[in-house]
Amino acid sequence: MKNRNSDKLRSLEEENKRLQVLLHLAQNLQTHLEVDKLLQATMEEVAKILFADRCTVFLLDEEKGELWSVVAMGIEKGKEIRFPADKGIAGHVATTGEILNIPDAYQDNRFNPEIDRKTGYLTRNMLTMPLKNKNGEIIGVFQVLNKSDGPFTVKDEELLTAISQIAATTIENSLLYEEQVESLNSFVETLSAALDTRDYITAGHSRRVTLYTLAICDEMALKEGCCEQVRYAGLLHDIGKLGVPESVLFKAGKLTDEEYQIIKKHPAVTRQILSSIHFPRKLKHVTEIASTHHEKVNGKGYPDGLKFEEIPLGGRMLALADVFDALTSRRQYRDRESLEKVWGIIEKERGESFDPEIMDIFLEISSKRIVEILESDQHKRLNHAELESLSAVPFKQILDLKLQDDAPDAEDDQKILQLFDKYYLRQY
Amino acid sequence: MKNRNSDKLRSLEEENKRLQVLLHLAQNLQTHLEVDKLLQATMEEVAKILFADRCTVFLLDEEKGELWSVVAMGIEKGKEIRFPADKGIAGHVATTGEILNIPDAYQDNRFNPEIDRKTGYLTRNMLTMPLKNKNGEIIGVFQVLNKSDGPFTVKDEELLTAISQIAATTIENSLLYEEQVESLNSFVETLSAALDTRDYITAGHSRRVTLYTLAICDEMALKEGCCEQVRYAGLLHDIGKLGVPESVLFKAGKLTDEEYQIIKKHPAVTRQILSSIHFPRKLKHVTEIASTHHEKVNGKGYPDGLKFEEIPLGGRMLALADVFDALTSRRQYRDRESLEKVWGIIEKERGESFDPEIMDIFLEISSKRIVEILESDQHKRLNHAELESLSAVPFKQILDLKLQDDAPDAEDDQKILQLFDKYYLRQY
Repeated sequence: MKNRNSDKLRSLEEENKRLQVLLHLAQNLQTHLEVDKLLQATMEEVAKILFADRCTVFLLDEEKGELWSVVAMGIEKGKEIRFPADKGIAGHVATTGEILNIPDAYQDNRFNPEIDRKTGYLTRNMLTMPLKNKNGEIIGVFQVLNKSDGPFTVKDEELLTAISQIAATTIENSLLYEEQVESLNSFVETLSAALDTRDYITAGHSRRVTLYTLAICDEMALKEGCCEQVRYAGLLHDIGKLGVPESVLFKAGKLTDEEYQIIKKHPAVTRQILSSIHFPRKLKHVTEIASTHHEKVNGKGYPDGLKFEEIPLGGRMLALADVFDALTSRRQYRDRESLEKVWGIIEKERGESFDPEIMDIFLEISSKRIVEILESDQHKRLNHAELESLSAVPFKQILDLKLQDDAPDAEDDQKILQLFDKYYLRQY
Repeated sequence: MKNRNSDKLRSLEEENKRLQVLLHLAQNLQTHLEVDKLLQATMEEVAKILFADRCTVFLLDEEKGELWSVVAMGIEKGKEIRFPADKGIAGHVATTGEILNIPDAYQDNRFNPEIDRKTGYLTRNMLTMPLKNKNGEIIGVFQVLNKSDGPFTVKDEELLTAISQIAATTIENSLLYEEQVESLNSFVETLSAALDTRDYITAGHSRRVTLYTLAICDEMALKEGCCEQVRYAGLLHDIGKLGVPESVLFKAGKLTDEEYQIIKKHPAVTRQILSSIHFPRKLKHVTEIASTHHEKVNGKGYPDGLKFEEIPLGGRMLALADVFDALTSRRQYRDRESLEKVWGIIEKERGESFDPEIMDIFLEISSKRIVEILESDQHKRLNHAELESLSAVPFKQILDLKLQDDAPDAEDDQKILQLFDKYYLRQY
């Protein structure tokens, strides 16, 4: 009797421990909605629970017929393992739905030693299990490697089965969420590009403006969330031009007063259009930022004549980026204006149109980055290795060199200037 | 010793049961990503676990300072309870973060008997608990009502605390997901409307085309997922017109051959633009549907000259809806064409431009719905009660009455026709 009770006690204690582990896992995984973070957390948790050295989650990319892992533990972040969905142990499991518990990997001819070779890892034992969604479809594979005290047991298999049920749903939800995030993102990018091409003169304008503002954000080391709002605002700042007839927008000669008034309405139309969009909370300032890109810090801008801090930071960034891009644009009939002239015009507006602080931050952007944005439509033609020598040269230095009365003495300075001009004047 | 063991055994068994319940809950809740379904499932599960008659989840709407519940058990689906976030027991809990365990609701002066009055329910005892996200912020309130065997216990409080931790994360994720879904949706709707207004002649065109195709979907009792793809395709089918210069798009006189060729490119441009968008899997056919709206079942359409089943069903729907809307559009300088003439033109294209089956389905749509779409820009002015008498009249019946040689004999028929014409001719 006593023994029966203590057996039961022990098994209940074990079962409780198991349940606690699973419950903790379920709660922990739920807190990660982004796929990358979720997979990272899953792999860490599972390795810990099963006393394994490493765990990898491979997801099935049905379209490409591949298994992939975003961030495998022990492999540099951002790198991705990708291989045909029927290759190796993981491929076998993804194809058959079987659980494979392999005590000695190199003795099993289904084992693909390629990944070990790539990563320098030595796989000893491995437990591989399909990851099924609620409809029983295989969405990926769990692979747990090198258990600390010998091969994986039947108990480990049971535990991993329970884990994979929890993880599969969490992963599916997170994929669905990211799909939605990416669809909004790609929609905004595509639309922005399509609107830009409506006007061949400003082709790529919104994209470059966005890139300049993001460069400013980086210099200011703003949080990712802020940058994201500025990015969306940059891509969408001119959407209000949909309300401007092409006869006015593309008029070759001087605009009449009336036509100018129509064009000046576009930031207000941008606000009107964007106000109808239920942006997610994390993008709630996009409308405000996008529609203030023609405000001036002296209060003489439009549509609202806001001053300094009344204009959102992102709006002040856009104002500078917008004008800088307009002034440095190529026209069909002429090359770029000289940089001295461009920045001369902008300097005159210091504290008038533009926030002096943001101007100074703009001057700190590396010349490499400026060149890459100026010539972003030629991305593939750029010699990025050559441009590397401009990466430590702030844009200000280029301007200073240009504003010297004579050509620069130092050889280095001459080289820098020549390199910059080569791209600025598109003589490459 | 034996007693100690059996006490321990009992408490382990209880704990085991508790953990199983929580784990089951965690897994069950995870499978619902849509807020409505998730809240419904949460409320049912929680009531069951706590042996309560009813459970309501109130979510905090911070912007409006209100608590709301989408689908309260026992209240008709779709109805919503909404009240100031500091009112009643739920308000008290949402404001203070306290747990309230009230054995007799009507003896507590914080209790707001209004909801009981509205719903005819009699609240006896209640347990109310804040729902906190991972940052400890209150995002809502759990309210469990009328435990079957007397008031809620301290154990119930503990259990609900654990439940609310699980539920809070699931609910937050689902809100974030829906935010994203809604932002893509509102973006597409807003853009579609903005593009429509670019051309005052066709203002509202994409919206009406979408509404016609949705009416066809409903007649065919298609799955929600299919309708959703057709809806997006309808809203976006003309996005390729962004590639057509306004001088061509709005030309008053006859188009030259060259101009006509430019216009004919728009479905291909629609395809090109939409192909750059990473639609979520559930919308993967949108591009194909949207870009086939000028295909004809006889293979003489464009851009690809597809025939019958080669054209996706949604594309065939769009083709009919697109032409029907164009033919029934008001122009600035004239009223609508007569319905006889409109449908005469369409009948000639039976089996040529249009799928005969879809034409027949279109004729089955209720005249009420046709009127509401034709006049959708006048939605607020429509007399919906009066239109109710057209709800059982298929559109075909109107056409048949119109095509009779003489005015209809029956009084009912005359009334129906008069009512339809009143709206068709906008004489209301």
